[in-house]
Amino acid sequence: VTAQSARSSAAEIERLAAVRLPPAVRDFVAGGSGAEVTLAANRAAFDRIAIVPRVLSGEAGVRMETQLVRTKASMPVAVAPVAYQRLMHPDGEVAAARAAKTSGIPYVISMLSSYPMEEIVGTGASCWFQLYWLRDRGQNRDLVLRAGRAGCEALVVTVDLPIMGRRMRDVRNEFALPTDVRAVHLEGDQTTSAHVAWRGNSAVAVHTSELLEPALSWCDLEWLRERTDLPIVIKGILDPRDAVRAAEIGADAVVVSNHGGRQLDSAVPSIMALSPIVDAVGDRCEVLLDSGVRTGTDVVKALASGASGVLIGRPVQWGLAVGAEEGVASVLELLRSELEECLRLAGCIDLVAARELRVTTV
Amino acid sequence: VTAQSARSSAAEIERLAAVRLPPAVRDFVAGGSGAEVTLAANRAAFDRIAIVPRVLSGEAGVRMETQLVRTKASMPVAVAPVAYQRLMHPDGEVAAARAAKTSGIPYVISMLSSYPMEEIVGTGASCWFQLYWLRDRGQNRDLVLRAGRAGCEALVVTVDLPIMGRRMRDVRNEFALPTDVRAVHLEGDQTTSAHVAWRGNSAVAVHTSELLEPALSWCDLEWLRERTDLPIVIKGILDPRDAVRAAEIGADAVVVSNHGGRQLDSAVPSIMALSPIVDAVGDRCEVLLDSGVRTGTDVVKALASGASGVLIGRPVQWGLAVGAEEGVASVLELLRSELEECLRLAGCIDLVAARELRVTTV
Amino acid sequence: VTAQSARSSAAEIERLAAVRLPPAVRDFVAGGSGAEVTLAANRAAFDRIAIVPRVLSGEAGVRMETQLVRTKASMPVAVAPVAYQRLMHPDGEVAAARAAKTSGIPYVISMLSSYPMEEIVGTGASCWFQLYWLRDRGQNRDLVLRAGRAGCEALVVTVDLPIMGRRMRDVRNEFALPTDVRAVHLEGDQTTSAHVAWRGNSAVAVHTSELLEPALSWCDLEWLRERTDLPIVIKGILDPRDAVRAAEIGADAVVVSNHGGRQLDSAVPSIMALSPIVDAVGDRCEVLLDSGVRTGTDVVKALASGASGVLIGRPVQWGLAVGAEEGVASVLELLRSELEECLRLAGCIDLVAARELRVTTV
Amino acid sequence: VTAQSARSSAAEIERLAAVRLPPAVRDFVAGGSGAEVTLAANRAAFDRIAIVPRVLSGEAGVRMETQLVRTKASMPVAVAPVAYQRLMHPDGEVAAARAAKTSGIPYVISMLSSYPMEEIVGTGASCWFQLYWLRDRGQNRDLVLRAGRAGCEALVVTVDLPIMGRRMRDVRNEFALPTDVRAVHLEGDQTTSAHVAWRGNSAVAVHTSELLEPALSWCDLEWLRERTDLPIVIKGILDPRDAVRAAEIGADAVVVSNHGGRQLDSAVPSIMALSPIVDAVGDRCEVLLDSGVRTGTDVVKALASGASGVLIGRPVQWGLAVGAEEGVASVLELLRSELEECLRLAGCIDLVAARELRVTTV
Repeated sequence: VTAQSARSSAAEIERLAAVRLPPAVRDFVAGGSGAEVTLAANRAAFDRIAIVPRVLSGEAGVRMETQLVRTKASMPVAVAPVAYQRLMHPDGEVAAARAAKTSGIPYVISMLSSYPMEEIVGTGASCWFQLYWLRDRGQNRDLVLRAGRAGCEALVVTVDLPIMGRRMRDVRNEFALPTDVRAVHLEGDQTTSAHVAWRGNSAVAVHTSELLEPALSWCDLEWLRERTDLPIVIKGILDPRDAVRAAEIGADAVVVSNHGGRQLDSAVPSIMALSPIVDAVGDRCEVLLDSGVRTGTDVVKALASGASGVLIGRPVQWGLAVGAEEGVASVLELLRSELEECLRLAGCIDLVAARELRVTTV
Repeated sequence: VTAQSARSSAAEIERLAAVRLPPAVRDFVAGGSGAEVTLAANRAAFDRIAIVPRVLSGEAGVRMETQLVRTKASMPVAVAPVAYQRLMHPDGEVAAARAAKTSGIPYVISMLSSYPMEEIVGTGASCWFQLYWLRDRGQNRDLVLRAGRAGCEALVVTVDLPIMGRRMRDVRNEFALPTDVRAVHLEGDQTTSAHVAWRGNSAVAVHTSELLEPALSWCDLEWLRERTDLPIVIKGILDPRDAVRAAEIGADAVVVSNHGGRQLDSAVPSIMALSPIVDAVGDRCEVLLDSGVRTGTDVVKALASGASGVLIGRPVQWGLAVGAEEGVASVLELLRSELEECLRLAGCIDLVAARELRVTTV
Repeated sequence: VTAQSARSSAAEIERLAAVRLPPAVRDFVAGGSGAEVTLAANRAAFDRIAIVPRVLSGEAGVRMETQLVRTKASMPVAVAPVAYQRLMHPDGEVAAARAAKTSGIPYVISMLSSYPMEEIVGTGASCWFQLYWLRDRGQNRDLVLRAGRAGCEALVVTVDLPIMGRRMRDVRNEFALPTDVRAVHLEGDQTTSAHVAWRGNSAVAVHTSELLEPALSWCDLEWLRERTDLPIVIKGILDPRDAVRAAEIGADAVVVSNHGGRQLDSAVPSIMALSPIVDAVGDRCEVLLDSGVRTGTDVVKALASGASGVLIGRPVQWGLAVGAEEGVASVLELLRSELEECLRLAGCIDLVAARELRVTTV
Repeated sequence: VTAQSARSSAAEIERLAAVRLPPAVRDFVAGGSGAEVTLAANRAAFDRIAIVPRVLSGEAGVRMETQLVRTKASMPVAVAPVAYQRLMHPDGEVAAARAAKTSGIPYVISMLSSYPMEEIVGTGASCWFQLYWLRDRGQNRDLVLRAGRAGCEALVVTVDLPIMGRRMRDVRNEFALPTDVRAVHLEGDQTTSAHVAWRGNSAVAVHTSELLEPALSWCDLEWLRERTDLPIVIKGILDPRDAVRAAEIGADAVVVSNHGGRQLDSAVPSIMALSPIVDAVGDRCEVLLDSGVRTGTDVVKALASGASGVLIGRPVQWGLAVGAEEGVASVLELLRSELEECLRLAGCIDLVAARELRVTTV
């Protein structure tokens, strides 16, 4: 019986990570774009939501198992794609994926991961592959095929980065990647600029700008849809009209996301954008959410607002910084226990019940 | 004539109690769960409500007598069930019940009281018996029978504690009950764990978790409904769908409550949940409210939002800590005088008029 | 040409008065009841209102002359009834009325004035007589007759004081009237208690409680309606149902008022209560407003929300404290110039235009 | 590739200007009227707006070229009319207009400019002429003819200054124009009062009051409409009824504006007034906006709320103070790059797309 033992919190793990990481790396993870208005608004929007709990469910347990897209998940959570996880710890993506496997949740491999996808999939985690669309279409095709061969179970196409948001912390820090952290899915000469200390600029921004297709279109996604049988998840949707279009071109899911406040500063908090999108797409495709999720209670708020599940980004990185695989596992188990506790206290026996909860703004 | 003499306030009594009680006991009473978001939101929600007073009632007095459930009350207030009142003062529940009798309002005996119900009923107060559903169904039946025999006039079943909310103050204090404060309605061996100093945990939480049924259902309440003629009050309802169901299974009243911010953190403030519930149940059952009530003006806000009455928790405990029976009596008479004054200034001659007041959000 | 000369503000005059007055007198004027929630809410509500100005009126001037009830006024403002104005200055009500005459606006004589009504009317100001309903009905009748004989042009019956609000500043100060300040319309023995230093109480509250009818009814007002041809203004209305009833019994006007935050603490700000009342009564009676008006812009907000005019209370008292008749005249001319400036900038040529302005909440 | 180089911000340029300018001049530009409620509310209203971005536009560029009224503009921005720009720098309006030409946007010549319009038009910038209606109608006619002959492409009639708002900073500073800064479009004897240090007054206010027609009417604008073929822009509209009337009398555009918070204090923020006006006028006339625009993101918020473009006032003056023509050019190019970046991140390929963005209040 450990009904109420002391436990950590995402905020505490963030503080621990902050003291371990070099300041510029801490900033790279923590920062948002512009004046970080959206970064702050993401949290404020979650905090304004109150849950109306139910009672007398008649069950002591909560069935949190679900399918996200077509992947089994022990809870409605996946690890969000985050670039360059070796910045957090030498074990990087491999450690994080091991923890995801232990937790039984999908791990989304960033195209800009610092370990190769095969090695990450080799951990046994259920992996999805995230794709930033490269200017070289052939390279995209190769990566998609490679992801399929490697055993990735879905493709996540990030569509909210036609250009990179102006992340002032990185600019002020003239942030560049250390030599031992590299985007291994790219050719060596394709990663050079990320390692240069640009005067008054972020090397990651320069590199991204060189590499990524700035004119991505719905046609490109249709092209992709025709070439793969993997489920396609479109990440970075905030307008219901785009969500409907995503469903129409055969996307299996969308991620309602403002990229953690790192792209358009002044963008609507994703939790505020969620309900209109769920209403618009109905059951034509799944709706996931990220940006600002820190606690199990936040997950319940997302579910009650209509999401099938959430992606969790920064807290996993903090866990990685604090304790490699074990640190990530702690973060995920903390989230699970918070989520389970919140669902129990809200009288939910499963995720269907969670989605029927009412929420209100205080 | 003492129209405007100085008088105390609940806030002042809280301060007096805070200096008299051991810090861990003070925290046990004051604390909420999680980040205490709901604890604070309860008060903020009351503070945002403004009353639209009436004029020219034509009467100098206010008839505050009413029936709560089927018990006569001199004002629309009952003393809320609170566990272990000997923590506040050696006279505990007996002193509090005496004050309730003096004030002419119902006293709700906590199942986890530190004096036996017979002794409490023996004060002459009108008592209701609060039931946490024990894992052992036979024990519940015995307690219900015992409550009936003892002369309790209603049963209050608390349904918002499938598990205990994580009350961080108690966890950090590694709070445990002193040996002279025991849940006397339980067998001796059933209370052991509440007295152990658990490392990094709250003994009350451990104990509660061992003891209480985590899978309580509507069927259990129907089972209870069939076995007793006492009025049944279901405490801890926040969703109108649950309130309607409570009425349908024959509950005489519901208490709209978030357990004083001690269960689901992020739960809706109960005063915000009240009107939709009143609208949903109509006259099918009574609607009471607790969580955040501190002043007579708060009571009027609850009445104007449709409640038949309120339960008052922490202020009674503070009164007990400050002055035993006399302290509680002071708190209750303060509340009565504030309530009477507020109703007079709002132009109400009785509680019917109070329920017809309009309120608005500022 | 003095388009933009420096000028004072009500806030500045308040500060000047605050240093001149004995602290307990300053508090008597400044204070509200309870926790002064409504006192503060009155101002906050005005501050949240934004005006949508018009353009191209085609006129350089603003016609601010109007009739309030049936009295000519040079602007839509009257001096609110305030008791015991000799507290502010030995010239008291006489000085204030002289300034009102100079400004061409009605002066409302408080029943608790410290100069006799005949002397106040003798200044030549257009006077209304405010009546607190005395327990002795004959005395009310006599005062009404006396007011008519003295030349008062309207009766203002204050109906929001069935009991006095608990004004904690006065209670803490154990405020009592000095011997040279007396309610001269009452018999000498009727004013004794207002001059006693009551332990832990306000003498004004004790006195008021002794004196005033606590069970005033609509029938009493009908009785009054039958006995006088003077216009009747009912002051202290906040609920549209009461405003409609006032119109139905023949009141010529209502004053939407929470008594400057001095009666029911938690009462709705009067500026928030105004529009629903205007909508409810239509043209069946005039609607005036007080409580929280400090500037000409506030007056425009009241007009745009449907009021025919406002009563101005505390600023006049501050002016009296600072400079007797001249001080009050300054306050009133400041208000006039602010009002005129605001109307000009809002593109209004007269008060009809002001009432057609739109306002919005920011 | 300079995707994310460090760049300045309007706030930073404001700080630089503030240290270079004499305090009274800094205040003359920065200040608002009254308590500067509207000045602050303009910014707060922009900050509450969140943008719902789109994705997958399929284009890498943004077409920001447009026509404002009938003038080509490289982005939906014009330089707002501001009096006496030599206060900022000896090169004054000429420098600012040169920068506008370089940027390819219209420059609005203030009637109170400190360089003659011919010299400003001589820079090659596309110029509009702003008219405060003078008391002498013949002089207005002459100025309009002169503006046409000089090559101005539109007339902007400011209608929100029937009197000047009370700008307390100027009053306290007893602000007067230095001798080398003069309203050159006026006769010498018409400008005298602006140069006198008036005790407790603003010389600019005194001068304006002498000079400008206080009774401007819709008929005057109709008179103007009949006498010129130049497009007419009516500046200072906040009520939809006035916007509709402007369209009806043949105005080509209105500027939704509260004069940067310098006229009616308590006026609605112009960004809040925008949508109702756009809805009311439909395509009967163009709708521009000013007051509070500081960043490219603000411009997008205005476009998404229905504006065709914005006027930018204070930031241009700060640029002029900091670096003459080059300073202004920096401000305008900063704005352009922010605007382009914001539109790109919001998934817009052109201004039509920008106007179809949804916004929400947070």
